[in-house]
Amino acid sequence: MERIKPRTLSGFMELLPAPQMQMERIMEILRRTYSLYGFTPLDTPAIESAEVLLAKGGGETEKQIYRFQKGDSDLALRFDLTVPLAKYVAIHAGELCFPFRRYQIGKVYRGERAQRGRFREFYQADIDIIGDGKLSIINEAEIPSIIYRTFRSLGLRRFQIRINNRKILNGFYSMLGLSDRSGDIMRTVDKLDKIGPDKVRAILIDDDGIAPEQADEILRFIAIRGSNAEVLKALESYLGKDAIFDEGFGELSTVVGYLGDFGVPDENLAVDLTIARGLDYYTGTVYETTMLDHPEIGSVCSGGRYDNLAAYYTDRQLPGVGISIGLTRLFYVLGEQGMLNPELPTAPADALVLPMGEDLSPAISLATQLREQGLRVQLYTEAKKFKAKMQYADRLGIPYVIFLGEDEIAQGKCSVKELATGTQQTLTAEDAADLIRAGLEARMQGTVIREK
Amino acid sequence: MERIKPRTLSGFMELLPAPQMQMERIMEILRRTYSLYGFTPLDTPAIESAEVLLAKGGGETEKQIYRFQKGDSDLALRFDLTVPLAKYVAIHAGELCFPFRRYQIGKVYRGERAQRGRFREFYQADIDIIGDGKLSIINEAEIPSIIYRTFRSLGLRRFQIRINNRKILNGFYSMLGLSDRSGDIMRTVDKLDKIGPDKVRAILIDDDGIAPEQADEILRFIAIRGSNAEVLKALESYLGKDAIFDEGFGELSTVVGYLGDFGVPDENLAVDLTIARGLDYYTGTVYETTMLDHPEIGSVCSGGRYDNLAAYYTDRQLPGVGISIGLTRLFYVLGEQGMLNPELPTAPADALVLPMGEDLSPAISLATQLREQGLRVQLYTEAKKFKAKMQYADRLGIPYVIFLGEDEIAQGKCSVKELATGTQQTLTAEDAADLIRAGLEARMQGTVIREK
Repeated sequence: MERIKPRTLSGFMELLPAPQMQMERIMEILRRTYSLYGFTPLDTPAIESAEVLLAKGGGETEKQIYRFQKGDSDLALRFDLTVPLAKYVAIHAGELCFPFRRYQIGKVYRGERAQRGRFREFYQADIDIIGDGKLSIINEAEIPSIIYRTFRSLGLRRFQIRINNRKILNGFYSMLGLSDRSGDIMRTVDKLDKIGPDKVRAILIDDDGIAPEQADEILRFIAIRGSNAEVLKALESYLGKDAIFDEGFGELSTVVGYLGDFGVPDENLAVDLTIARGLDYYTGTVYETTMLDHPEIGSVCSGGRYDNLAAYYTDRQLPGVGISIGLTRLFYVLGEQGMLNPELPTAPADALVLPMGEDLSPAISLATQLREQGLRVQLYTEAKKFKAKMQYADRLGIPYVIFLGEDEIAQGKCSVKELATGTQQTLTAEDAADLIRAGLEARMQGTVIREK
Repeated sequence: MERIKPRTLSGFMELLPAPQMQMERIMEILRRTYSLYGFTPLDTPAIESAEVLLAKGGGETEKQIYRFQKGDSDLALRFDLTVPLAKYVAIHAGELCFPFRRYQIGKVYRGERAQRGRFREFYQADIDIIGDGKLSIINEAEIPSIIYRTFRSLGLRRFQIRINNRKILNGFYSMLGLSDRSGDIMRTVDKLDKIGPDKVRAILIDDDGIAPEQADEILRFIAIRGSNAEVLKALESYLGKDAIFDEGFGELSTVVGYLGDFGVPDENLAVDLTIARGLDYYTGTVYETTMLDHPEIGSVCSGGRYDNLAAYYTDRQLPGVGISIGLTRLFYVLGEQGMLNPELPTAPADALVLPMGEDLSPAISLATQLREQGLRVQLYTEAKKFKAKMQYADRLGIPYVIFLGEDEIAQGKCSVKELATGTQQTLTAEDAADLIRAGLEARMQGTVIREK
């Protein structure tokens, strides 16, 4: 037979079983955490009509998208989870209750140039809260608490949620009479971390055509640093000059003010006036989350408040706030940095049952019994040497091997060996289950991510 | 702004929040059940190289597939989870431990003609056990026990796992000297349930060119009915005439013999000599699962034993056994039949916290505290009338509403109202959590599927 060389496309993550188990654990934590805040799971198709998906149009997206014909349909793979959400809410608005809180963890597709750590198929893990006409500011204060709890549940401590408010920025540029250039300015200012203030000033003046004294004013503004209280205090000196600025200041103060009640410690949150988020549609609070020991990774969880989710589909005003975790990239980076806790079990089973006699009935019954107690049990019945069977358990990291020979069967017991210690005990099935459960509990103590 | 009419493509399932919650629950049960048997979760890309995906080639598949160019790559969306598994095992054979047991729940794509209850994007939930060179027959006996436990965990009782062995069929046709026509014959025989024996006989003779006395012999064979013991007994009369038949008989006896130990009751399993499975690559035990009260749906879980998973990619012999549940179609049918238990909660939250005063801090703290106890809590802070807030909880099916007014705050308590009964109690946060937890437990008693 002529053979085809099997291969997985570059830019597509395909994990071996052990890391896949860690990925599943992360997804489970995200699902659980999002659920705690009243978000309902949603699942939309990966394929949409190209017309619907590209309603907004625009350059980069259009180039990267996977778009194709099937019959006479013009189709495309989703490139994020926000556009499908907008479509979903526009279609189903009459059947949903607002505020509508949904989470979605799903694959999206972007045909970017393949490079290390960049993926063409990747998971996003999104939450959004959509209001009907209005949406309370408190939702914007709740978002950092969800980010905080999510990352803490994964095991991270050394991270910082950076927040800002677009109204403060828009108001500030309006004070300077630069409203119509605020988009360009924010894109330039966004590079501050990477290129430093001098180069930002140069670009502002040379490329964006800002007067030097205004550029200095901008640099003074974005240089405001300190504790959250200090930053808010410094912003007070700009109050009373622009209504939008004042509104943004009020929102930011409210958001910061409630964070303690939401359980977010000061050290995990910083008001940062340089955060703008590139996207045009954010209108209020914006969020970025950085890992303090790995700033080079950039933001691992970003989002913000927008005034109109589905303007391309409906004239219903649907303001919202949401965040997105680029899960595949985050997982890749955590692996690269050696931050995935190797001590958490990744074995496919908790125990491997090895029948030692001809009649397999007692071993099958035992395995069935242990499964009824909730244990993950694999029955090993291949005709292999004893050593090979033990190596199988060892290579997979299965913590317990259970032997069932004539003696054990006669006594109504089984022998349980813990591979890590070599300890072997002859026990009833119930006691074996208890022993294994206790051992598993001890092994499950750690978090998925381990900081160094 | 010019608006695009939002729409979801036909043949693509997109659920409202309540049914989506039921779907999530089903998926969670599948994941848990598969895990109990030592299957490890796997996730492969939805897009593969067309050359790799279509290695086997062949008519129907090729017509239905979503295939497209991106740059100069010829790509296609996976149409099942078996081909990607074959590719995965062929690539990673050196890093896997055999037998390799994996489950995968993922979306697959087939551009079929759209019709009611047929989907172009649908979930398959597969398990496979892959051996390296050899695979013990016990694995074939374990599969029905996994099907049994899966369907029972979902809440089904009225189902039957029908099994057969391809070697018995091949051996039988070999006895008749019809080996080279066994494919056609099996396809005809497969229609027995739908068209009855007379029409099967007519097609065998007229279309398949089988002599009338041989057609009668075939009909006599597939008419063998009765308890599993009776069917095996009837098959004994054919023994000693064909080695393949005898081997198949031995395997079938072994599989049936161990089912009791695996905990599969007789009434949920039937040896059925008409089962062949259309696919060419099954070589041993084959499985179909039917819902006894809905035979019109056909098989909801099928599969079998194959000798060579990845022959198109590698010369390594990889025998296996696997089954697949067509999850999206099953979910659709269950919904149509009204079999999804409406009593299980589908609300996005267990409790809705309603702050009654100006200062939201106590309400935020309370919500945070309840979440730390594992409760799913939504904080409702929109400026709406009291009645609208209660309607929100009611429409979403949120079972408890928690009020926090001046009096409660002064007492360090909160008022918990159970919407179903109207009962309201003023409690500490700890007692409120206990009350809600107990209420949830009572609500979670039922199974996802409810037979009538």
